[in-house]
Amino acid sequence: MTGIITSGEKRLVIVTGRAHPQLAEDVAHELGTQVLETESRTFANGEIYARFGESIRGADVFIMQSHCNPINEWLMEQLIMVDAAKRASAKRITVVAPFYPYARQDKKGRGREPISARLVADMYKAAGADRIMSIDLHAAQIQGFFDGPVDHLFAMPVLLKHFKEKLDPETLTVVSPDMGRVRVADVWSDHLESPLAIIHKRRDPAVANEVTVHDIVGNVEGRVCLLVDDLIDTGGTIVKAAEALKANGAIGVVVAATHAVFSPPAVERLSSDAIDEVVVTDTLPLPPEKRFEKLTILPIAPLIARAVNNVFKDDSVTSMFDGAA
Amino acid sequence: MTGIITSGEKRLVIVTGRAHPQLAEDVAHELGTQVLETESRTFANGEIYARFGESIRGADVFIMQSHCNPINEWLMEQLIMVDAAKRASAKRITVVAPFYPYARQDKKGRGREPISARLVADMYKAAGADRIMSIDLHAAQIQGFFDGPVDHLFAMPVLLKHFKEKLDPETLTVVSPDMGRVRVADVWSDHLESPLAIIHKRRDPAVANEVTVHDIVGNVEGRVCLLVDDLIDTGGTIVKAAEALKANGAIGVVVAATHAVFSPPAVERLSSDAIDEVVVTDTLPLPPEKRFEKLTILPIAPLIARAVNNVFKDDSVTSMFDGAA
Amino acid sequence: MTGIITSGEKRLVIVTGRAHPQLAEDVAHELGTQVLETESRTFANGEIYARFGESIRGADVFIMQSHCNPINEWLMEQLIMVDAAKRASAKRITVVAPFYPYARQDKKGRGREPISARLVADMYKAAGADRIMSIDLHAAQIQGFFDGPVDHLFAMPVLLKHFKEKLDPETLTVVSPDMGRVRVADVWSDHLESPLAIIHKRRDPAVANEVTVHDIVGNVEGRVCLLVDDLIDTGGTIVKAAEALKANGAIGVVVAATHAVFSPPAVERLSSDAIDEVVVTDTLPLPPEKRFEKLTILPIAPLIARAVNNVFKDDSVTSMFDGAA
Amino acid sequence: MTGIITSGEKRLVIVTGRAHPQLAEDVAHELGTQVLETESRTFANGEIYARFGESIRGADVFIMQSHCNPINEWLMEQLIMVDAAKRASAKRITVVAPFYPYARQDKKGRGREPISARLVADMYKAAGADRIMSIDLHAAQIQGFFDGPVDHLFAMPVLLKHFKEKLDPETLTVVSPDMGRVRVADVWSDHLESPLAIIHKRRDPAVANEVTVHDIVGNVEGRVCLLVDDLIDTGGTIVKAAEALKANGAIGVVVAATHAVFSPPAVERLSSDAIDEVVVTDTLPLPPEKRFEKLTILPIAPLIARAVNNVFKDDSVTSMFDGAA
Amino acid sequence: MTGIITSGEKRLVIVTGRAHPQLAEDVAHELGTQVLETESRTFANGEIYARFGESIRGADVFIMQSHCNPINEWLMEQLIMVDAAKRASAKRITVVAPFYPYARQDKKGRGREPISARLVADMYKAAGADRIMSIDLHAAQIQGFFDGPVDHLFAMPVLLKHFKEKLDPETLTVVSPDMGRVRVADVWSDHLESPLAIIHKRRDPAVANEVTVHDIVGNVEGRVCLLVDDLIDTGGTIVKAAEALKANGAIGVVVAATHAVFSPPAVERLSSDAIDEVVVTDTLPLPPEKRFEKLTILPIAPLIARAVNNVFKDDSVTSMFDGAA
Amino acid sequence: MTGIITSGEKRLVIVTGRAHPQLAEDVAHELGTQVLETESRTFANGEIYARFGESIRGADVFIMQSHCNPINEWLMEQLIMVDAAKRASAKRITVVAPFYPYARQDKKGRGREPISARLVADMYKAAGADRIMSIDLHAAQIQGFFDGPVDHLFAMPVLLKHFKEKLDPETLTVVSPDMGRVRVADVWSDHLESPLAIIHKRRDPAVANEVTVHDIVGNVEGRVCLLVDDLIDTGGTIVKAAEALKANGAIGVVVAATHAVFSPPAVERLSSDAIDEVVVTDTLPLPPEKRFEKLTILPIAPLIARAVNNVFKDDSVTSMFDGAA
Repeated sequence: MTGIITSGEKRLVIVTGRAHPQLAEDVAHELGTQVLETESRTFANGEIYARFGESIRGADVFIMQSHCNPINEWLMEQLIMVDAAKRASAKRITVVAPFYPYARQDKKGRGREPISARLVADMYKAAGADRIMSIDLHAAQIQGFFDGPVDHLFAMPVLLKHFKEKLDPETLTVVSPDMGRVRVADVWSDHLESPLAIIHKRRDPAVANEVTVHDIVGNVEGRVCLLVDDLIDTGGTIVKAAEALKANGAIGVVVAATHAVFSPPAVERLSSDAIDEVVVTDTLPLPPEKRFEKLTILPIAPLIARAVNNVFKDDSVTSMFDGAA
Repeated sequence: MTGIITSGEKRLVIVTGRAHPQLAEDVAHELGTQVLETESRTFANGEIYARFGESIRGADVFIMQSHCNPINEWLMEQLIMVDAAKRASAKRITVVAPFYPYARQDKKGRGREPISARLVADMYKAAGADRIMSIDLHAAQIQGFFDGPVDHLFAMPVLLKHFKEKLDPETLTVVSPDMGRVRVADVWSDHLESPLAIIHKRRDPAVANEVTVHDIVGNVEGRVCLLVDDLIDTGGTIVKAAEALKANGAIGVVVAATHAVFSPPAVERLSSDAIDEVVVTDTLPLPPEKRFEKLTILPIAPLIARAVNNVFKDDSVTSMFDGAA
Repeated sequence: MTGIITSGEKRLVIVTGRAHPQLAEDVAHELGTQVLETESRTFANGEIYARFGESIRGADVFIMQSHCNPINEWLMEQLIMVDAAKRASAKRITVVAPFYPYARQDKKGRGREPISARLVADMYKAAGADRIMSIDLHAAQIQGFFDGPVDHLFAMPVLLKHFKEKLDPETLTVVSPDMGRVRVADVWSDHLESPLAIIHKRRDPAVANEVTVHDIVGNVEGRVCLLVDDLIDTGGTIVKAAEALKANGAIGVVVAATHAVFSPPAVERLSSDAIDEVVVTDTLPLPPEKRFEKLTILPIAPLIARAVNNVFKDDSVTSMFDGAA
Repeated sequence: MTGIITSGEKRLVIVTGRAHPQLAEDVAHELGTQVLETESRTFANGEIYARFGESIRGADVFIMQSHCNPINEWLMEQLIMVDAAKRASAKRITVVAPFYPYARQDKKGRGREPISARLVADMYKAAGADRIMSIDLHAAQIQGFFDGPVDHLFAMPVLLKHFKEKLDPETLTVVSPDMGRVRVADVWSDHLESPLAIIHKRRDPAVANEVTVHDIVGNVEGRVCLLVDDLIDTGGTIVKAAEALKANGAIGVVVAATHAVFSPPAVERLSSDAIDEVVVTDTLPLPPEKRFEKLTILPIAPLIARAVNNVFKDDSVTSMFDGAA
Repeated sequence: MTGIITSGEKRLVIVTGRAHPQLAEDVAHELGTQVLETESRTFANGEIYARFGESIRGADVFIMQSHCNPINEWLMEQLIMVDAAKRASAKRITVVAPFYPYARQDKKGRGREPISARLVADMYKAAGADRIMSIDLHAAQIQGFFDGPVDHLFAMPVLLKHFKEKLDPETLTVVSPDMGRVRVADVWSDHLESPLAIIHKRRDPAVANEVTVHDIVGNVEGRVCLLVDDLIDTGGTIVKAAEALKANGAIGVVVAATHAVFSPPAVERLSSDAIDEVVVTDTLPLPPEKRFEKLTILPIAPLIARAVNNVFKDDSVTSMFDGAA
Repeated sequence: MTGIITSGEKRLVIVTGRAHPQLAEDVAHELGTQVLETESRTFANGEIYARFGESIRGADVFIMQSHCNPINEWLMEQLIMVDAAKRASAKRITVVAPFYPYARQDKKGRGREPISARLVADMYKAAGADRIMSIDLHAAQIQGFFDGPVDHLFAMPVLLKHFKEKLDPETLTVVSPDMGRVRVADVWSDHLESPLAIIHKRRDPAVANEVTVHDIVGNVEGRVCLLVDDLIDTGGTIVKAAEALKANGAIGVVVAATHAVFSPPAVERLSSDAIDEVVVTDTLPLPPEKRFEKLTILPIAPLIARAVNNVFKDDSVTSMFDGAA
């Protein structure tokens, strides 16, 4: 055969934006490697620049970014890194977005609205991403927004392990903070073999975060309530739910969530007496001002690292969650 | 200016597949026109053929099909009609799929599953569809699966009008037949200003339609229960829910759903004594064998006709549902 | 270099739809492996579900399906499997469609018709197929409908081998059953070094399968006639051709075709006294009711297996047919 | 409604490349307008430049080019004009390619060949063409190569009209010059209600235009033979066919073809005594050196003009050929 | 003809992001209409939401945004508005970005860099933009980054008009502040019929905005120097150029630029004694803290309004600049 | 795991069009392999045909072509080869176009012009190219025209090496022949640590190659001038520049350029007494009639070979030019 023949190799590379570099370092450490250095800069007029410090030609590149506030900056930085990786001849580009940006804008609730979660998927694609890895998508349908493989990870095993050691299933009730999250609570209720309750509240669709009514569907009197959600943003929903639970006789309220967005005044709200513990993972950075006494942070890096490794090695990611979802 | 200049015109054309031609005729009649005839045929080996009986060059074409069983036949027929319309120089092609096919396969519940609802959107796009019109999507996120405008209509105004005349809000409780449909029930509860109850059941994820446990979250004793869902397929969920409601003291059980899929043995099940009335629309054809004594069918053609007209005339579709969703 | 480096591997995986699982098993057996199990199901309303039983991450996946009646079901099942494979991170997806669906709708014969064979290619692409493998395409131009590599295999070596052992070239005349298939007959005539005759008939373009006139161009008196075609559907063309040949003095009529579609009443027709033998391959399933005394079935699996192996190993597929087409 | 509302207009514009400007002028003249002037230039190194002399913003632009030798120059010029029209905000761009370039490379005859006819379709699309208009495609399947509407015109009515006035159907036999063109001859035979004959020859697939054997299938003795083909390139096939016909007793040989490619030595060959008349259209330019005594040229501009007009006015193009194809 | 036929209309709609609403209002006012109201919001975690206050179905929508700091916020807001407009069935979407974001990242200066200006074009396309309108692109090649029409406007007529009234061509020298902008200065020099000088400086490619050497190529002694550039960001280049000019004997230094980015410390720098006047347009918002004594701001709205009007009415935009570029 | 697993390999293949086969042979020789033979042919009507002589399935294919006159022929030939390689299942296709065709048409200088350099990039993409390799692009922004990686090589190290041995930096001045090429001259001036001068001339934008005025900005008296450009086409600009330099006291004029287009009458012009030496590379073929006494040709094959090798082996291409651009 005419030509030159050599054996094939493959190389795993992890790079990160500037939103949450510690997480990328933790993941790299779990994998026994380092984050490949990126020169990142914001120019005077706000434009972002990124350049990889080493060749990534032919590599299987994982571009990590955590989408905390300012979320558009970090999204744009990640898109620019994807573009740079594509033009630098990376073999395969996986966007690692533990907290998927704009996940809550996943449908047109009213006419003339955008579906920004789809837009984000299209922008990742346009920039050159081959695949996406994310954790606990606000709506599982977001997997279908991307034209390619999405590795959808679940933080539940990490959180469950924590609670199984600490809570007594006999006195526990799993509670969904609103109608939209009932499915998540349902899965938890299955895994913990505990009963389920639901907070029935109404939002004014034209006004964000304004809760008006709080009925409790199910029994919580004398129970330790585990409020579960995929994310906590300003904490308004959760604290009102906790107060309603306590007012209805709950003897304890513990909150579990994957994504600690913690927009102000989340910290003040979550410090409420109605809440006994808040357990989250570090998919998003938690600087000192977002930490408070009742907060427990579970590291998510081992989960991501295992998924990255399995993707790289063509091992199953699904099997990581057998029985979990 | 060099060239020939004339004034512009636009032309609305409605065509239909063979699944539910009556619906298209009803829509055309509402609009004061006729369905443009299509020569449709199935060859001996099962391949489908379609050819429009008249030129549709430059027209704003609405291609209607109802996706009842055999659903893949009707989907393929519609795709072939879209392809034919594209190649016949239609100016704009709107797929009208009142019951969106494969809507329930809208995410990967487990690894190595398809997201067939996204696949359907991509196939419509590949065939040449510019827009989609559908009613009561199983998940609103399906709007985001299509790369283009989706007119998402709601049958609720049609159904509500029926119930407002017949049911007493004082004794009424809206019931969600399972955890996944709570949001829909929530909206009904808002509109009817009635309390809400939920059936908490579990499915074995590896076996279809096998329900195992039926708890009722909320109070139904002495109440007339309105079980609401977007669709009724084999009726298993609904009839078990109705039985549980009656067993828990409900004095009446009325069922409302937009899409009457009614796969066997739905008719037998829905004829159960536990159910007092079943109210559906005719988004799907209801041949005599799918009709039974307790069934009320509300015509959906006026709603579709109004939406088609507004799309054609560049009027708002959103405003048709002000206050309804 | 920063990162983790390992050696590359590649993995061949064969999966199959439910239309003709035996063929996939035969191919896998030829290759010395097994078909990877797929969980396939049809729901009550006709929707199809498919899930691979094992991880296929990073694999070179061949998705086999034979497109017999109900052809739209099997096409849709294969598309769903392609979508599932794409989302399951297969490295490369080859659609194996031995009998290409809708191949006969390969052009607009009249205005406002679809070109369904192109639509099928676009749907495979939209679902995520990287390549197509097919046998004896009705029109070779269909290769150009797909935006990617098409491995076009020829069954002629398999069929020729059979006939070279059985027929005497001295008395043999190759016959094309109609004007549209003359090229195929021409190639056979070349390979067998036998003269050529053509049945000159006319179809009414508005009516399927209705043949009106049967002239024979060329000499068949006292000859054994080998009628060759790419496919036999209802058998109408072939049996009328055979009758015309016998009426014109042919002393034997043998029929050869790659694809045994055999839509009713093909079996009755082909059992006619005018035909002495029918030789086909098993690209399509041949259940007992499609088999009859004069039928000889040649296995196609060795040919497919060799092509799959060469595609997987980057060996030439073209060289399999040197001198044959 | 907020905004500014005006009535819509539409404008037809015809532009042309430099290969056959007379044809565009004839078409414009038929339509009662002029060709919009284009500044066209070839730079010293062979690069082509084109700029429209007037605004075409919002216009329905028909970009005409005839693909004679040097065919790649003219193809590239047309693509550049399409790009310029797209960037100049034309509303709709129709490529008018009366003789589709590379139409004969419509499939892979052997492995590792291109399918250049598909490549041409993709290049038109990439440049920005919305639609294609062409005449007597070498293979009708080429319609399926383009992802959009193709207006496929037939020159047969133009040619038939000429022959119906001149030839006696009683003594006429329609002849296909080789196996690949039988279908065309079949349609002519239908329309003229004359018998059919076929020249059975073989080409060496590795050598262009080298014909080896010439059998005649059918009876031509004492007949006036009408040899029909879509195109005449070097004339080799046609002249050998004519000689074979005369050698077999034909009393006259008339040749009809749509596209007069006439590559050398076509003129010498076609001047052969074996041929009595050659009738073509002017889809390609016919400079004096390509004209000879026996040649009759029928104008194609009226046909194109009518099709352009119907496309512009959203009238049917199909109906122009009712009964003709 | 079957169907409903009405006359066509078209409707111009202007909407704007929140970066520079005054500019959109000025444009609308010039056109004699109003900006269609958009409900715009930033959620607690930084995600942006936008919804049009009125139906825009079928409209020709111009989505204006000025890309000042925070530039990624405003870019994302505009993309979300494009997505919303696409899904709201706008007929045509034109992005109006007077100052094209990331225009300076238009090529890979070094390996492993992004080409963010192309990424921006792709994101506009992915979101649904049909066309782009921009003013004085940093590199004219950016027109080629977008797959569709780009209306490239020039502010020079606006600026020239100002200077022709104020400066004496006899004593004037046009100066390019660095090698990269020579072409712009060249065009000004042509229009003003004045000589040209160039500042020859070098940047350290690894450090932004750090100028090291300043030679003057050409004669500036005793001349009034007009320093021209497309944009002024931090003002470093301009002020160093002005100082060098004064040090080399210039008797006056006037600065002209289209885009007043004015990142800190631009205002301090531009207030330098070396500069006598700074003339810019208001393509970007100029809040009080960016204004200073020597600054003259010319309104750009009339230019944009005229271009928008011509695009809407299918009039030529090119002719607006005859002789100007 | 079900399936067949083997180790991966990769294979480098070089093929070439017919424009400059020697260059491909030189590159292959440098790499220690041969060019894989292609059967290339031009048919009588000008259509091009190409077929690879050996299987390239799974190979990393580099398709070389030099775009000299007739440039459209060679571009089309390369596109056809890309199409053939795609359909022959090449794993990755790199277009090697040392002199990028239509590079000078990289923007709309006036309305209604094409951007042919973008069109070329889109055609490469449409044909199936994954990557492009080119040398000294006329505008670096062309990298952004292609949706994928572009390896942009620089001939400067090759040229610089030649001049460093021959010219004395003390007496040397680098000269840009016009305003548009100042940046290139600037980089040379940096590398040679020599002063810079610029020829300030004006072209009539409506007429090609007609220079009207020649001012020299900077000092050239008593200097050896090195005129640098990326390409020399007809030589008009260069020879007028050289004459102006000599007229202004230059004691020597040496010309350096990467691409020797040399359209007539370049050879005559460059033989002018005003020019002492012309140094170019052989990115384009230089047949005897394009060679003259003062011409020095430096081989470019080693540079291309090294880049091809690094692309194939996933080594850095950027590092080849550290410090050079």
